[in-house]
Amino acid sequence: MTQTLAAVPGTTPRLQVDIWSDIACPWCYVGKRRFEAALEQFPHRGQVDTVWHSFELDPAAPLTTTDGTAEILARKYGRTPAQAQEMLDSMTQTAAQDGLEYHFGAQRPTNTFQAHQLIHLAREHGLQGAMKERLLRAFFTEGAFLGDPEVLARLAAEVGLDPEEVRTALAEQTHAAAVRDDEETARSHGISGVPFFVLGGKYGVSGAQSPETLLGALNQLWSEAAPLTLIGAATSSDGCEDGSCAVPQS
Amino acid sequence: MTQTLAAVPGTTPRLQVDIWSDIACPWCYVGKRRFEAALEQFPHRGQVDTVWHSFELDPAAPLTTTDGTAEILARKYGRTPAQAQEMLDSMTQTAAQDGLEYHFGAQRPTNTFQAHQLIHLAREHGLQGAMKERLLRAFFTEGAFLGDPEVLARLAAEVGLDPEEVRTALAEQTHAAAVRDDEETARSHGISGVPFFVLGGKYGVSGAQSPETLLGALNQLWSEAAPLTLIGAATSSDGCEDGSCAVPQS
Repeated sequence: MTQTLAAVPGTTPRLQVDIWSDIACPWCYVGKRRFEAALEQFPHRGQVDTVWHSFELDPAAPLTTTDGTAEILARKYGRTPAQAQEMLDSMTQTAAQDGLEYHFGAQRPTNTFQAHQLIHLAREHGLQGAMKERLLRAFFTEGAFLGDPEVLARLAAEVGLDPEEVRTALAEQTHAAAVRDDEETARSHGISGVPFFVLGGKYGVSGAQSPETLLGALNQLWSEAAPLTLIGAATSSDGCEDGSCAVPQS
Repeated sequence: MTQTLAAVPGTTPRLQVDIWSDIACPWCYVGKRRFEAALEQFPHRGQVDTVWHSFELDPAAPLTTTDGTAEILARKYGRTPAQAQEMLDSMTQTAAQDGLEYHFGAQRPTNTFQAHQLIHLAREHGLQGAMKERLLRAFFTEGAFLGDPEVLARLAAEVGLDPEEVRTALAEQTHAAAVRDDEETARSHGISGVPFFVLGGKYGVSGAQSPETLLGALNQLWSEAAPLTLIGAATSSDGCEDGSCAVPQS
C-alpha cells in the first residue's frame, strides 16, 4: 500500500517497486531473476513491496496460431527465419546464464490478456509474485498453452488460488479493467518496452539491467529516504478536538 | 496505481493522495469536505488519485450498545455528560460551517470494521469515493445503523454495487485483511489520529486542516514534480534485444 520511502520520523519506511512486464517477454523473466538477485543483496529487502503491472507487447496477438515463436519473431521484426532463430538461441543462452531454461521450440504463442487478468486476481489474495513466476515458467520452460482458461485455472490452483474463482473471473472478465488501467498508466509514463522498473516512484530502470545496477538504485533510494514533511499546525492528540480524532493513549 | 508525481519527461504526472480515516470520526467527514474544497481550487485536480485507507479509532467497539454518542464520549475521555454534550454541539456547529448536517442525538454507535471492509470492496469497482461518502452521510446525518450487513448492502446498492456481492463479502470477511493491512501501514507511519492525509508519499497532513493548507500542500508538491530519473544504460527500442522487449513503432 505505502508507495514511497516517506515515513513519519522514527518509524520504518517501506519502498515500493512497480514492475511493468508481459508474460510473452523473454527479457521480462530474465529481468525478474536479476531483480531478485539485487533484492537478495539489499539489506532492507524486508521493507520492499513489489507490485507487478500489466503490459501486453502485442494486444492483438491471436489466442491460437499454427506459427512457432521463430516465425512470429521473423515477421514482426522483418528478419529472416535464420536471423530470428539466432536471436532466440542467443536469448536462450542469456536466460541460462541467469538460471532459466527456455524452450522456444516447444513454446505455444498466444494472447496474454487472460494471464494478466489472473495476475491481478492473484494480487487480491497476496499471491501475485507466485502467480507471475508460475506463468512465466509455464510459458518459457514447459510449453504450456496460456490461452486456455483451464490451463490457467490449473496453474493458479498450484500456487494456492481457488480454480473455480479463476474460471469465473476469466469468464466474467472481472479483472480486465485492471489490466487496461496498468497499460494506461504505462502509456502516461511513456513506457514503450518491458521490463520497466519504477523504484519508489522516483527511479526508472528500463530493460533487464544487471543486479548491480538494480541494487545501486535500491541503495541510492534508501540513502535518500526522507521522513514525511508535516504540513500545517500540529493537532491535539486528546481525542476528537482541534481537527482530529485520536486513539486514547493508555 | 501510480503513486507519485514522477513521470517520464514530457508525459503527464499523477499525484496520489492517501487518506487514513474512520467512519465514526466526526473530523474525518469535515476533513473530507475541506480536502474536496482544496481539490476544487487545484488546477491539476484531473491528475489526482485519492485512495481511502482504513483506520478504526476503537477496534473493540461493540456492534450494538444502548449508550448514545454523548455517553460513550464522556466515558472514553473522562468528561462529564455535560462536557461531552458541549463537545458534540461544538462539533455540530463546525460541521455545519463546512456544509454538513450532524445529528449526534440520533446516531447509532457501532463497530466500523464491516463498513471499512465495504469501502475496500467498493474500491475494486471504482466506487470507493462514493461509498465512503454514502457511509459518512448515513452515520452522521441519517442515524443509520452501520452494524447491520443489510443496511450496508442497501447503502452499497445505492452507489452502484451489487448487494448480493456485499452480503457474501461481509459474511466471508473477504476484505478483512485489507483493512488490517491499512491499519498496519498507519502504525508503521506513526499515525495515531485521523484524518491523516499523505500527499504524493511526501507530505503528511494531520487532522482536518483548512482547504488553504491542503491546497498549499498540493501546489507545493506539484511545483516539485520531478521526472523519473532513468538509471543505467539506455536500451534498444528495436524489439526484443539488449535487455528489453519493445512495442514496434509503426
